[in-house]
Order: sequence, then C-alpha cells, then structure tokens
Amino acid sequence: MTVRLNSDETLEDLGGGLKILQKKNGFKFGTDAVLLADFAKGARGSVLDLCSGTAIVPLLLSVNTHISEISALEIQPDIADMAARSVGLNLLENKIRVTCGDLKRVSEIYPKRSFDAVTCNPPYMKHGGGIQNEYSGKTIARHEVCCTLEDVIVACRDMLKSRGRMFMVHKPNRLAEIIYTMSKHKIEPKRMRLVYASRTGGATLVLIEGMSDGGVEMSVEPPLYIYDEQGGMSAELKRIYDMKTE
Amino acid sequence: MTVRLNSDETLEDLGGGLKILQKKNGFKFGTDAVLLADFAKGARGSVLDLCSGTAIVPLLLSVNTHISEISALEIQPDIADMAARSVGLNLLENKIRVTCGDLKRVSEIYPKRSFDAVTCNPPYMKHGGGIQNEYSGKTIARHEVCCTLEDVIVACRDMLKSRGRMFMVHKPNRLAEIIYTMSKHKIEPKRMRLVYASRTGGATLVLIEGMSDGGVEMSVEPPLYIYDEQGGMSAELKRIYDMKTE
Repeated sequence: MTVRLNSDETLEDLGGGLKILQKKNGFKFGTDAVLLADFAKGARGSVLDLCSGTAIVPLLLSVNTHISEISALEIQPDIADMAARSVGLNLLENKIRVTCGDLKRVSEIYPKRSFDAVTCNPPYMKHGGGIQNEYSGKTIARHEVCCTLEDVIVACRDMLKSRGRMFMVHKPNRLAEIIYTMSKHKIEPKRMRLVYASRTGGATLVLIEGMSDGGVEMSVEPPLYIYDEQGGMSAELKRIYDMKTE
Repeated sequence: MTVRLNSDETLEDLGGGLKILQKKNGFKFGTDAVLLADFAKGARGSVLDLCSGTAIVPLLLSVNTHISEISALEIQPDIADMAARSVGLNLLENKIRVTCGDLKRVSEIYPKRSFDAVTCNPPYMKHGGGIQNEYSGKTIARHEVCCTLEDVIVACRDMLKSRGRMFMVHKPNRLAEIIYTMSKHKIEPKRMRLVYASRTGGATLVLIEGMSDGGVEMSVEPPLYIYDEQGGMSAELKRIYDMKTE
C-alpha cells in the first residue's frame, strides 16, 4: 500500500515493526508519551486517546491484546492527518481510528460514557490568553491554548464508563490541580508514579491513574528514574523502550 | 528541678541534651514525627503543633532559632500532662506551651489566624464510627476517632495567618483526599516529599507543605528512603536522626 509522506515529515522506526510519521521541525513524541503508554498497559477494552498528536500512544498500545479498539482525538488537522497516515502505514485501521476534533466537544464526537479507558498526554503549561490561530502546532501541543486541564478531565469524565480508567502524564508542579480537579469530577485518583531525572533532583513528570466513580484510596508506586547513578539510561527506562513495541 | 515520672512512663534521651517522656506500653513517637520535624525546619515565627502527642515535634523544633514560640495541642489529658512534663524537664516552658484540647474547637483556644506555621502528625486511619470513650490512647492517636482529616485541615486553615505554612505527615493512600481537602480550604499544596522504605516498594509516608492563600504551583522533592540498598539505615535518615537535636 502507499502512504503519502509530506515534505515536512519524517518516517521513523518505533521498533517491533511499528513506524510513525513525525514533523521534521518540532512535532515529535517525547519520553512522556512512551512512559504514559507503559503506565497504561493495564487498559482493557475500548480506549480513547485525547490530545493524541502523532498517535504515538495508540500505536504503542495497539500491541496490547486486551485492548479491542482505540479512538484517537487530535485537534490540529495536519497532525491528525499525519497520525491517520501512520495508522495506515502500520495496517492498524481496524484497531485505531483517528478523528480530528476538539475535546471540549467530545460528547458530539463519541457516545457519552462509552470507553473503558482514556489516555491523555495534554499540554502541560498554563496559557495567559490570546487567539488560538496565532499559535504554532508545537505551542498548541504544549500550552493550554485550546484546552485547559479541567477541559481534559471533564472530557475524560464524559467519555469514561463508570469504573472506567483514566491514565494521564503531566508535570508535578500541577499535581495539586490535577488531583483536585479529578476528585471534583469524580475521577478518583487511584495510582500515581513520579518520574525523576536522577536521584538528586525533584520530580519531572507525574503519571496518574484515576477511576471514574472509584473509591477514595490510592497508591504511590516506586519512583521511576530516567538516568541511573552513572548517568546512563536507567534499567527501567531501557525495559520500557525495549518493550514498547513487543 | 523535679518532674514527676508516672509508673507507666519511661524517660528517653533524644540526644543533644533533650529528653522525652513516653508511655511504656505504646504511646511513643515514631519515625514519621522525626521526619515531619525535619521537613518543617523552614518554619518561622509562631508555630502550632496539632495532635501533638508526646510533644515530640515541638521538642525537636525547639532548637530552631527562627521559631519564637510553639503551642502544642493534644486532646488526651494524660498525654498532654506527660508532654507538659517533658517540656518542663527540658526547661522549655518559655518556648513550648502544651494545652489539652480538641482541635475541632481550636478557635476557642487560640486567636484565629494567628500562627505563622502549623505542624501536624494526625491519626492516619479512617474510623468506622463508635463512641470515643471506648478507645485506647493508641487508637485515638492512630484512628480518626476524635477528628477527621478535614477537621485537621480546617483547624490549620483557622489558625494560620494568610501565607502561613502548614506541614503534615500522612499516609500516601490518603493523598488524593489530603490534596483535595487542602485545596478546598485554600491551603494550597506547595511542596511534597514521598517516603519509601526501599527502592522497590510503594511510598509509605507523604510529607506535604501547604500555604494558606498560596498560589497554585507545587514541587515534588526527591524521594526519601528509609533504608539503603544494603538494608541499613539510609544516609539521609542518619542525617535526620543525627541532626534532630543539634
């Protein structure tokens, strides 16, 4: 089959036979997306990936045989188009469906409360205001130009079945807001893991799992270190990268 | 001077010249209180210690020259009496004042919003209900028989000046409730540290600092390990224990 490759795109090998299209200058997936896919490996049934970008999370989750289908929602038309072509490249059209749309109107796109799990790697940074059209794709992916943290959590709430599971990666400086907003919208935080670059600095990412209508009780898993004490990639990160397409 | 030692009590050396009275069978301070005192070393000015127990936290904080005075509130009369005698033993009556009272009525005991900092090592476990008088001192210290997490946080809110700092130690399984309830009562979580027994298990304690009327932004500090990789006490815990009375 033939899949179009635009001049501003590059085709990269994810390992394990998976390939992904990315933008040459900037719109590429990061370690956070890979960590999220690993953290969400307990997902089952139907999965919705919000702020899907290159569809990296759906692609990595596609090897999970407990997942029946993955819907990927991305607001930027050119990125959604590229993501759909990545899905085509991997012959995964039967498992992953990419839609271009706004998560603030997610209930007009998918049936309400119909997913077993939602994954999300949202924009991390607060935005001071301004007009959406003025911003680059990278800015939209990283700053809350098109949606706030609360918009994301409300979309999760509206899409998850009762007892359905939400998996998100975010920045620890927003952790209080994340937990407050999840609790407010009845997605009870159940499991959390903090990611640290090294043994000495503060956390750089947080992985959090919530359950829609879940009970109030959570666990905090062991820290995940990116680097080992010699400054090389940690054994766990190696495992996650090695396993990502197995 | 003479301080009474009851037959069910023991006198222990905290190091650095400090001594503390404890109950022979059970009511003793734990590592969590020592970690809290270390975590709260940034406290300044007037400090209130809620759920004060043996007054271990005020005793450890008494060496902090930036703290002008410490009020210790304990609900159990015999424990409050023992704590007051520990203060007397250390000739700290000018710095620490122990009061027997209920934190649910804290506004009747101290002037509202009058403290620069509040410390608290509250009961960790939820309580199913029942009559307070039926419970032992240990049960009251460990289970939410006399006060809930929300009661504690409301008391902090009522006692802290605006921009005053709250320092608490608790269990990570309650972290979502802790953050939600702090945020709800405008004590914004600002700093968090998770405590792990070893490198492989989940977190066993959480240390959290909030600021009354603070802005929404927090940091997650490096993990604190109780044991090192050889199973001995970690270097950091040794430092905390060595420094606790310096």
